[in-house]
Amino acid sequence: MDRAKSSKARKVCVCKSVAFTPQSLQYEKTKVQMPEKSVRIGVLGASGYTGSEIVRLLANHPYFGITVLTADRKAGQSIGSVFPHLATQHLPDMIAVNDADFSNVDAVFCCLPHGTTQEIIKALPKGLKIVDLSADFRLRDIDDYEKWYGQPHRAPELQREAVYGLTEIYRTDIKDARLVANPGCYPTSIQLPLVPLIKANLIRSENIIIDAKSGVSGAGRGAKEANLYTEIAEGIHSYGITGHRHVPEIEQGLAEAANSKVTVSFTPHLMPMSRGMQSSIYVELAPGASVEDLRQHLKVFYENEEFVVLGKEKEVPHTRHVRGSNYCIMNVFPDRITGRAIILSVIDNLVKGASGQALQNLNLMMGIPENTGLTYLPLFP
Amino acid sequence: MDRAKSSKARKVCVCKSVAFTPQSLQYEKTKVQMPEKSVRIGVLGASGYTGSEIVRLLANHPYFGITVLTADRKAGQSIGSVFPHLATQHLPDMIAVNDADFSNVDAVFCCLPHGTTQEIIKALPKGLKIVDLSADFRLRDIDDYEKWYGQPHRAPELQREAVYGLTEIYRTDIKDARLVANPGCYPTSIQLPLVPLIKANLIRSENIIIDAKSGVSGAGRGAKEANLYTEIAEGIHSYGITGHRHVPEIEQGLAEAANSKVTVSFTPHLMPMSRGMQSSIYVELAPGASVEDLRQHLKVFYENEEFVVLGKEKEVPHTRHVRGSNYCIMNVFPDRITGRAIILSVIDNLVKGASGQALQNLNLMMGIPENTGLTYLPLFP
Amino acid sequence: MDRAKSSKARKVCVCKSVAFTPQSLQYEKTKVQMPEKSVRIGVLGASGYTGSEIVRLLANHPYFGITVLTADRKAGQSIGSVFPHLATQHLPDMIAVNDADFSNVDAVFCCLPHGTTQEIIKALPKGLKIVDLSADFRLRDIDDYEKWYGQPHRAPELQREAVYGLTEIYRTDIKDARLVANPGCYPTSIQLPLVPLIKANLIRSENIIIDAKSGVSGAGRGAKEANLYTEIAEGIHSYGITGHRHVPEIEQGLAEAANSKVTVSFTPHLMPMSRGMQSSIYVELAPGASVEDLRQHLKVFYENEEFVVLGKEKEVPHTRHVRGSNYCIMNVFPDRITGRAIILSVIDNLVKGASGQALQNLNLMMGIPENTGLTYLPLFP
Amino acid sequence: MDRAKSSKARKVCVCKSVAFTPQSLQYEKTKVQMPEKSVRIGVLGASGYTGSEIVRLLANHPYFGITVLTADRKAGQSIGSVFPHLATQHLPDMIAVNDADFSNVDAVFCCLPHGTTQEIIKALPKGLKIVDLSADFRLRDIDDYEKWYGQPHRAPELQREAVYGLTEIYRTDIKDARLVANPGCYPTSIQLPLVPLIKANLIRSENIIIDAKSGVSGAGRGAKEANLYTEIAEGIHSYGITGHRHVPEIEQGLAEAANSKVTVSFTPHLMPMSRGMQSSIYVELAPGASVEDLRQHLKVFYENEEFVVLGKEKEVPHTRHVRGSNYCIMNVFPDRITGRAIILSVIDNLVKGASGQALQNLNLMMGIPENTGLTYLPLFP
Repeated sequence: MDRAKSSKARKVCVCKSVAFTPQSLQYEKTKVQMPEKSVRIGVLGASGYTGSEIVRLLANHPYFGITVLTADRKAGQSIGSVFPHLATQHLPDMIAVNDADFSNVDAVFCCLPHGTTQEIIKALPKGLKIVDLSADFRLRDIDDYEKWYGQPHRAPELQREAVYGLTEIYRTDIKDARLVANPGCYPTSIQLPLVPLIKANLIRSENIIIDAKSGVSGAGRGAKEANLYTEIAEGIHSYGITGHRHVPEIEQGLAEAANSKVTVSFTPHLMPMSRGMQSSIYVELAPGASVEDLRQHLKVFYENEEFVVLGKEKEVPHTRHVRGSNYCIMNVFPDRITGRAIILSVIDNLVKGASGQALQNLNLMMGIPENTGLTYLPLFP
Repeated sequence: MDRAKSSKARKVCVCKSVAFTPQSLQYEKTKVQMPEKSVRIGVLGASGYTGSEIVRLLANHPYFGITVLTADRKAGQSIGSVFPHLATQHLPDMIAVNDADFSNVDAVFCCLPHGTTQEIIKALPKGLKIVDLSADFRLRDIDDYEKWYGQPHRAPELQREAVYGLTEIYRTDIKDARLVANPGCYPTSIQLPLVPLIKANLIRSENIIIDAKSGVSGAGRGAKEANLYTEIAEGIHSYGITGHRHVPEIEQGLAEAANSKVTVSFTPHLMPMSRGMQSSIYVELAPGASVEDLRQHLKVFYENEEFVVLGKEKEVPHTRHVRGSNYCIMNVFPDRITGRAIILSVIDNLVKGASGQALQNLNLMMGIPENTGLTYLPLFP
Repeated sequence: MDRAKSSKARKVCVCKSVAFTPQSLQYEKTKVQMPEKSVRIGVLGASGYTGSEIVRLLANHPYFGITVLTADRKAGQSIGSVFPHLATQHLPDMIAVNDADFSNVDAVFCCLPHGTTQEIIKALPKGLKIVDLSADFRLRDIDDYEKWYGQPHRAPELQREAVYGLTEIYRTDIKDARLVANPGCYPTSIQLPLVPLIKANLIRSENIIIDAKSGVSGAGRGAKEANLYTEIAEGIHSYGITGHRHVPEIEQGLAEAANSKVTVSFTPHLMPMSRGMQSSIYVELAPGASVEDLRQHLKVFYENEEFVVLGKEKEVPHTRHVRGSNYCIMNVFPDRITGRAIILSVIDNLVKGASGQALQNLNLMMGIPENTGLTYLPLFP
Repeated sequence: MDRAKSSKARKVCVCKSVAFTPQSLQYEKTKVQMPEKSVRIGVLGASGYTGSEIVRLLANHPYFGITVLTADRKAGQSIGSVFPHLATQHLPDMIAVNDADFSNVDAVFCCLPHGTTQEIIKALPKGLKIVDLSADFRLRDIDDYEKWYGQPHRAPELQREAVYGLTEIYRTDIKDARLVANPGCYPTSIQLPLVPLIKANLIRSENIIIDAKSGVSGAGRGAKEANLYTEIAEGIHSYGITGHRHVPEIEQGLAEAANSKVTVSFTPHLMPMSRGMQSSIYVELAPGASVEDLRQHLKVFYENEEFVVLGKEKEVPHTRHVRGSNYCIMNVFPDRITGRAIILSVIDNLVKGASGQALQNLNLMMGIPENTGLTYLPLFP
């Protein structure tokens, strides 16, 4: 963009929570006295959709200011030349990750592809807080990593340190973490409803059938024939049947909740929408449990959470109702088959399913209110 | 449209099958000697999407010529004023159904809403062949009809006569029928794979989980807020959970195949696409059965069928691959959970799921090759 | 939604501008000392898309708090039941406009259909600040209103008082206004580039050809067959040729700039997108003027504006680059025909084209920084 | 696909025109006595969208049977593996063009990229009829070719022989041609209305402003970031401003009609739709001419044409009304500015804008009815 505005121009927002809910009060207690934009952020891999989404969210963040943007193949370019919708932002040009000076960085969002991430994070200064949006540190068992990703894990010691960043479930650990493995989009939408229900023994952990639907941005910005407009519009198809790489992550989380091995049926579908994800989950009720029990448990479990919302009874969540926001909306419905229930869960795959949850995690790690910079309402229509 | 072409202009196509497959040979034996456009067709309810689709398909049909079009609220208008894409056709103007003269009609496609259809069909001359695309004659048990449609059945004697028009399954009965109840779109996509597998005892009829996805045209052309572009684009949502009216139709067909009552879990989803339907069906294998057994059985069962296609092993069917055509493509996949399988089935909801199958049925009823007027390839992209 | 969060929960954001540009410094000088959410806002007609967009934008506004929501046909319902994406907001239920108590309201956004608005605004307490998003006060000449809207103007005295709310052009008048007529979406996208160029005599005011493209949300949430998903997806068409009601508004603004009557060629097109608007404007250069002169003039004219952005040379604006934001991006290109130029201008029709500009205006009227609550970056993809 | 149907299975359609219009009678006189599928067709470049569209159209063609399919990068693959929607067709596998045996080919559709096509066509046996869908033979002046395509023309002698395949305008020459240069999509939609009007001196050939909108399939199936679903959905943008390569082709056709050099203003826009194209053309009336004169002239000019349709007065053509068909629908509207008119023209860019017109041309070249295999009605919705 061609703006004559002084390049020194800056507009910042101070978001102050004055809510009275327990959760929010807890935020209040943190008593943030941080100077504006005083936390210096690096975004590694800024030329993809999760990277640009981090930039979008940080634009209204009062404390986090971006000082380093890397993108090896776009080194030397401005963010506005790669993402014109961000051209109004005054940000450093993108550089190669190897050229980055981390001495003026306090925390990084790592938005790089899996496989390359382990070595890059290994090389970062130890003082940095890191939220890694790739899959490289999500699987606790490095043999699982090798099996599903086809290469040995290159940073096992970091793996031991990494905390899995499903915020509402692992909040306590995340607060003290240095390296957080940000969850995948499907695993987020699936574990948020299932983990509490399995832990409470309200559903069986066998025969969990997950039919998930994703927007195309989950596939990234890489130029692939399969993701052309003409190949995606006005249709739907399943993909990655039995073999999608989010499977071991989902099963890891559910197994921890169940305290036993869990095998799920997971079939993702690609849909003609840019953002959004719905998981339709078909479960068997535990003996004696009812649909209302499930709803009641989720209601209590999430009642102090800002971003996880249980719909009213019978209210069907739509992906449109969370677009652009960090919300997860879920609900539970009776099934026609006795002893079964239907659980629906929707998120924006780029926000709660990626960059939004990453920011939620870094807020936690930095000791500031978890919702800072995340109070966007959904964009509808 | 403003065309100076003589209104008498007519272009017709004679489709002759020279295929050598058993199925096709069987067509050959019918030795059609029918004069062009000699079967006079009435389309009742021509101002909706299934009505206009009948008109589209008949345009290239050699024997069927439209002589009556009804649409009560559009009476007096031309088809081109209601559906400009059909304006090039030389067709009678639409009239109110009560004004229709059926003395020059041999067969009708009834594209009216359920509820009103029973009385209208009751009043038609007995000599007419009828394919009814509404739900009014699909349920054999009139108590089921009353329960699901909220009103008593008004033509029980016609119900007894009606033949359920799932062509590939009930072909023999359809040939001799006077009144065919054309199946719903979801039931077509679901029964085509499941009926043969249940009959062959290859899958269990308990715990069948169906997650279906439909294009918006299935909701018709009525002006509803929920179906506005702005409410549908770029998102997905479930609807009719546990209560969709196609449930009793699906369960009726599966029960007949199983020879016992069947209750299914059926959750439809509305998608941002105009046409297309996918049913993702999660089943338990019968003891001893394998995914390969299922594939092999479907392969043999449908090998002489033109419109039902089993994909190659591992090939995922897309709704885009059947758009605008009468094909149903299906396939079977292994599940991660032992003893389970995943069945995918795609159709165009307006063709094989409605008007195409209706035409296939009327072809059969009139003794002409079943594929007449239906040999359109899918429109992609 | 079923949330156990205390209904008293409130989260607010204080946006403080620390920019160093002249425009921003001017904001600084306003020295806002307003208590949080102290300005009480009524939204009349909250059940349409412009109403819900006001609610979305105000959610992060530090000073404006909604105290009254009206929607005659949805009276008694919560905003969340009509717009589930807003269900997380703690807002008063919608009431009929006649039941509204304006004693606890300081300012209203009037999001009602044209025609009804004049009498409703006439009946409001005189102390209220009003931004009217309808067309009812946009045309200064009430004879024009009667001619284009088919009914006599019912509040001519208010018309004389009303200030036309094209913020960047009429800022000084808006500051002191009580009643602002918020511009239409097309007129906003067209006047922002053309008014400065005509005033500067850089383009001729004759033979201005405007080919505009709009998203469907501009047509509102009313249930119309023409706006069904199936009627809009995967296609484009012109509408309102020569007769669109935004024509007199466009011509009024250009005539004022030209100081003479202006007649434009204006052809809008409806596109398969929910939000977004592009005006492609084909103009004749004034004698001696060059494309570079036009660019240079717009650059200087808008250089201190936050929301109007001139693209870099040759950079093509996309509607996607402004989605969900209050930006207008414009650019000027050479034409192949000597003496002509091509001007492209994009906005989000619901934000800068409606509710965003309305908020920008009310901020001005209330003496707070113009960008308050409007610092959302575009949502892409 | 896994079909047990005999690979010898074949279904063919004989389309016989019995229309009574002059045009159609002329078809009748050709008295086709050709054996079924007796013309052997090669499709060069079958792995792109125009290639697959040729295959789709030929499936119902009575005389043309495909014997050779080439696609260098997909050599050895079946058409069904590259285009699953065509998997039901029994066709030879794709081979490299250099491996093709043209001894069993009578005519070819050349669907290769521009630049490579000239040498490939030069190398073909001289006895073949050729319809080239690339741009390589569209510009009569080889200097123009070099200027716009950045490389010297490699087959000037073929260029002299090539006939420009805008069927309705150059029908007589096409009938006798060996090599037809099939027009581009934009030039087709623009020249069909403009050439007759310019020839008849009803519009001025100066200051013709063309604002065109295209579906994404026009960009082909190549994997480009810019054409990803996420980059195209829910937005619009101009591209190729002043420099689109269809400009010289448009100007060549209009100049021939005007008998003088013509320079147009041409701005294409990319839209979120797979198929379809609209040209909105803003013209100056010739002195004394009226909008009704234009309509009347087009009516008479095209009244015997099957595929070019003038809409009724005031009827707005939609791209949806021609999707999947070979129709061009056009209409003329008054402009608000005195002395101007607005011309709208819509086609399916892959059919009348590419493969459909190519087939129409080859039908002509082979002496069979021009509409053979092309009588598909539009697919709506």
